[in-house]
Amino acid sequence: MTDRFTVTYHVRSDAASIDARAQAIAVEQSVEMPLAGIDEPAVLSDIVGKVEAIEDRGDGTFSVRIGLALATVGDDPGQFMNMLFGNTSLHEDVILRDAVIPDRFQASAGGTPELRRRLAVAQRAFTGSALKPQGLAPERLARLAERFALGGLDFIKDDHGLADQAYSPFATRVPMIAGAVARAARSTGHPTRYIPSLTGDLEQMRTRAKIAVDQGLDCMMVAPMIAGFSNVLALTRAFPDVVFFAHPAMGGAARIAPELLIGKLFPALGFGAVIFPTYGGRFGYSPATCRELADNARPALAVPAGGITLNRVRELLDFYGPDTMLLIGGNLLLARDRITEESAAFAAAVARHGKDEHGQ
Amino acid sequence: MTDRFTVTYHVRSDAASIDARAQAIAVEQSVEMPLAGIDEPAVLSDIVGKVEAIEDRGDGTFSVRIGLALATVGDDPGQFMNMLFGNTSLHEDVILRDAVIPDRFQASAGGTPELRRRLAVAQRAFTGSALKPQGLAPERLARLAERFALGGLDFIKDDHGLADQAYSPFATRVPMIAGAVARAARSTGHPTRYIPSLTGDLEQMRTRAKIAVDQGLDCMMVAPMIAGFSNVLALTRAFPDVVFFAHPAMGGAARIAPELLIGKLFPALGFGAVIFPTYGGRFGYSPATCRELADNARPALAVPAGGITLNRVRELLDFYGPDTMLLIGGNLLLARDRITEESAAFAAAVARHGKDEHGQ
Repeated sequence: MTDRFTVTYHVRSDAASIDARAQAIAVEQSVEMPLAGIDEPAVLSDIVGKVEAIEDRGDGTFSVRIGLALATVGDDPGQFMNMLFGNTSLHEDVILRDAVIPDRFQASAGGTPELRRRLAVAQRAFTGSALKPQGLAPERLARLAERFALGGLDFIKDDHGLADQAYSPFATRVPMIAGAVARAARSTGHPTRYIPSLTGDLEQMRTRAKIAVDQGLDCMMVAPMIAGFSNVLALTRAFPDVVFFAHPAMGGAARIAPELLIGKLFPALGFGAVIFPTYGGRFGYSPATCRELADNARPALAVPAGGITLNRVRELLDFYGPDTMLLIGGNLLLARDRITEESAAFAAAVARHGKDEHGQ
Repeated sequence: MTDRFTVTYHVRSDAASIDARAQAIAVEQSVEMPLAGIDEPAVLSDIVGKVEAIEDRGDGTFSVRIGLALATVGDDPGQFMNMLFGNTSLHEDVILRDAVIPDRFQASAGGTPELRRRLAVAQRAFTGSALKPQGLAPERLARLAERFALGGLDFIKDDHGLADQAYSPFATRVPMIAGAVARAARSTGHPTRYIPSLTGDLEQMRTRAKIAVDQGLDCMMVAPMIAGFSNVLALTRAFPDVVFFAHPAMGGAARIAPELLIGKLFPALGFGAVIFPTYGGRFGYSPATCRELADNARPALAVPAGGITLNRVRELLDFYGPDTMLLIGGNLLLARDRITEESAAFAAAVARHGKDEHGQ
């Protein structure tokens, strides 16, 4: 007997071909060669993928469950992705729909409870905004962050476009913004967190995380589809006291279900919070997708974003519940001179909703 | 004036909406916020993306060319991907179709000419096969490699599923296979190359590359969509004497055209050879896609693969020309006891085609 984990694919196929298609995927995602060329019995019994179930979804697609050998994955989350969808991603008629995450990659239970403790936010949802536009000098971004923080927001994150550009190098920008946010936090009495975005190769991400830690920062953001899964796990393990926020950039490989990719795989890399495009904003996820994604991701913090306006606070919190951070970026920035006031209104709306929820 | 590079998207849209859609992409892939919230003139003029052209493709889609500011990219290829398609990848109606690769990421001219020099292969196409199935112990893989090499193949690569599994750890497997291939090469007189697959985070990839270099190996394989672009560039720069082969695993983000992703972006990371699923095999790329991909990739070596059989050597070399390596994996392994003979037949077929081509 071999330990296996189950992967679910949705396959566009006719009924006559689906058995062969399912078997072909089981082979492609394991030994990737004709079984007739294998003369080692242990490989045939323990390594070759096994079709566990095929179910007609009634819309021209079939749900195919395949058991893959855990031994092929080892301890590397990049290799896990490779075994989940490496070659099969090249087939346009297959969607990677779901997977059981092996224990070795199970996310820590940090996420939401840890953030509640750090920010002393007991029950209500969290608020957040983003520093934009890129192209601004560090001083300008720091001033902007201070104004958000004076409004009492919980989190202020780098726009995911802020990297290490000449006009705003990481090593200059981050201490300056961290200082501005700390000043504002002393003034409001609320421990607002600044979340810098880490980019570059593993070594650069580590160096940047160290700069941020030296500034007293304990939340950071990474885009795992760009950074690479193996590197993200190395990073999150190297900084166990940091809560990492996952950015979905390049996550639009349409044929990996976001419920899985963002909801399950990202938390498995050690992320304590996952940012995703909410229904009703600039992107196209349905309410059902958002619901399942958020449910999957918890206890990591669910962070809906992407075009949220202030007047949707109640609706979105009714939908997502309090273990949520609402991220409003561009729509707060539109207030220009009144950013602090708009931020305060945002913070108040979330706080009010939290109180209503808990019967005060 | 600001330096810009042009990115081409194919957008599904009606004619009435396309101007607004194009402008929205230009904003999403640059400042990612409402322009009305920006009060810095230099950001509006130099950083915000500019729609350069919109062309009706006549099939319900439009080709949209957008000029993005080079300053937003810096020197990081991960950030380059982020600016190309980070958030827009989350829109299902947009395909990233083409991009001008900034000079700083231009591939070296290594690739094909360098491989011709190292293997003393003047004009004909190259031959290659893959070590499979995973699950075999290192000794078995080494014996297999030796039999391929005795047939006179040019390259023998790890299956992309071979990582650092307990049943075949990298540090044991690679020296054993390298030794077996070197023995065979001494016997045939042909300098067959073994290509190990590097996986893991940047540090692990570096450690493994070092093990391979210590064995005298000068060709290695990486899957950039799993390893992360920034890490791959760090790796290829750290080992300038190694020719890196790009594996397309997880490259099936269907909405990045493979002509761009594999044909242009991978070589920009320092790869000297790109493996891709050829038309007529197990995967679905069209001949036109394969042609453009291979043309884009050169002078990197074009490596069609994915279900090639021996009887297609002539057809495929007529199609791809000699600056090509034909990679036949599973279909050679089907020969079982006759692997060396089949490998020799494969090598002979490619050599014969090379001679025919050059009028001997």
